[in-house]
Amino acid sequence: MAGRELTSLRSPRVKAARRLAKRAFRRREHRFLAEGPQAVREALEIPGGLAELFTTAEAEARHPDLVLAAERAGAPVLRVSGEIMAELAQTVTPQGLLAVCEFVDVPLDEALKAGPRLVTVLAHVRDPGNAGTVLRTADAAGSETVVFTDASVDPYNGKCVRASAGSLFHLPVVVGPRFGELAAELKGAGLTVLAADGAGGRTLDEAIDQGLLARPTAWVFGNEAWGLPEEILAHADEVVRVPIYGRAESLNLATAAAVCLYASARAQRSAGPAGRAVPPG
Amino acid sequence: MAGRELTSLRSPRVKAARRLAKRAFRRREHRFLAEGPQAVREALEIPGGLAELFTTAEAEARHPDLVLAAERAGAPVLRVSGEIMAELAQTVTPQGLLAVCEFVDVPLDEALKAGPRLVTVLAHVRDPGNAGTVLRTADAAGSETVVFTDASVDPYNGKCVRASAGSLFHLPVVVGPRFGELAAELKGAGLTVLAADGAGGRTLDEAIDQGLLARPTAWVFGNEAWGLPEEILAHADEVVRVPIYGRAESLNLATAAAVCLYASARAQRSAGPAGRAVPPG
Repeated sequence: MAGRELTSLRSPRVKAARRLAKRAFRRREHRFLAEGPQAVREALEIPGGLAELFTTAEAEARHPDLVLAAERAGAPVLRVSGEIMAELAQTVTPQGLLAVCEFVDVPLDEALKAGPRLVTVLAHVRDPGNAGTVLRTADAAGSETVVFTDASVDPYNGKCVRASAGSLFHLPVVVGPRFGELAAELKGAGLTVLAADGAGGRTLDEAIDQGLLARPTAWVFGNEAWGLPEEILAHADEVVRVPIYGRAESLNLATAAAVCLYASARAQRSAGPAGRAVPPG
Repeated sequence: MAGRELTSLRSPRVKAARRLAKRAFRRREHRFLAEGPQAVREALEIPGGLAELFTTAEAEARHPDLVLAAERAGAPVLRVSGEIMAELAQTVTPQGLLAVCEFVDVPLDEALKAGPRLVTVLAHVRDPGNAGTVLRTADAAGSETVVFTDASVDPYNGKCVRASAGSLFHLPVVVGPRFGELAAELKGAGLTVLAADGAGGRTLDEAIDQGLLARPTAWVFGNEAWGLPEEILAHADEVVRVPIYGRAESLNLATAAAVCLYASARAQRSAGPAGRAVPPG
């Protein structure tokens, strides 16, 4: 059972959790916030993943299983008033459950050791909602690792966590490498580095037809407003563009990533012996 | 030249434009608001498309070409103060140009007369940002008509207009049909009606492999939270799901639509004589 209800914003535990809305404090504590029952469940699946659970009396009554699981996992359960929850939560209608989670990212070499055949790289992605949606899409398309470069938004940003819809907890996420060194590591691991950019010399369809996508691939996605900078294009094996058939000027980042990643998923799965032996889901 | 600067929210022109933030007034006036220089350019490309142009002195200095083009097109140009523009605009940083546009939608039979081979239907899509992103994606993928059913969000909603990034002006948009009658019309026009739903009996890859996507197709996309209702699934020729290879529970609506529409674009373009004779873009 949660103890006495915390009702003051000056409570040290509440203050510590509130500070995690800021990147500098997240980095220092190696912790981040995730809201709602789904996030709590996801955090509980990772040993030691849930550091603390803030609840309201109402949410405890609705989710007694989660409160019990948190206690069994050794995570302090802190009951707070509705006002405190509203201050802690970053959504307009908080669901009364807020998980303080330990960082989940892994070092690049650990992620590459598993021999991923489909890697997603977010380079210069600044909008956290877009980044989270790409993370979710990468998970759905069977990407086995997602890398946020040093020039991209923090994956532990609240908006990114929400937009990822749990995918932040699902697959190895790597945070912070510089692109030049990352590209060398990816190539060293046998991955073809494909940069998605509207200025690409070949279309996605050409890349499919030429068998390029059947190879182990790392897709690099950039900032939708101005695409990928020259230093990144120079490090890629190929620059590929999603064709625009109508009059739209461009696709948004998450939709372009969805088209590229699913094209790779299909090409790798239909590539026969070279593809991974996974039945279509 | 714009005349005297309007500085009062009580000015009848300003009041009339402000009311267009509400759907009931848009319906009555058959007009909607679109912000920024790109929207003004798009509206000017449609004869009679621009009804009025609100500007600030600063924006006039930055875009004299647009002000001149608006005047030549016979649209009144109304200069307002920065405060009035901030009230009229729905974005946090309005760009000083606000177009009052005439509705652009066309009747269903007119849209179908052109013999579209790729139609996008938004059924029960409630989030205007998602709807606008699907519209933009449909445009990019070469969809020739987009239909918003009576249960979907208003395409003239400000958030939808912005998310469409101009695509609302690019292709025939049909507004308001009921799904049952719409499905019959689409089938009568030779289109195969495919509903995208996570509960679909066949995967997108199976649909591609079986040649289903090479046919003229109307894709139906629903509400991401609960998918498509039974009455819509029952009217579809097939229910198709985008496969989930990883641990994500689902894709968001716009990314699922991107994967489906680009799969159709590729299948129709590589289908040979049965496909449309359009070179890949």
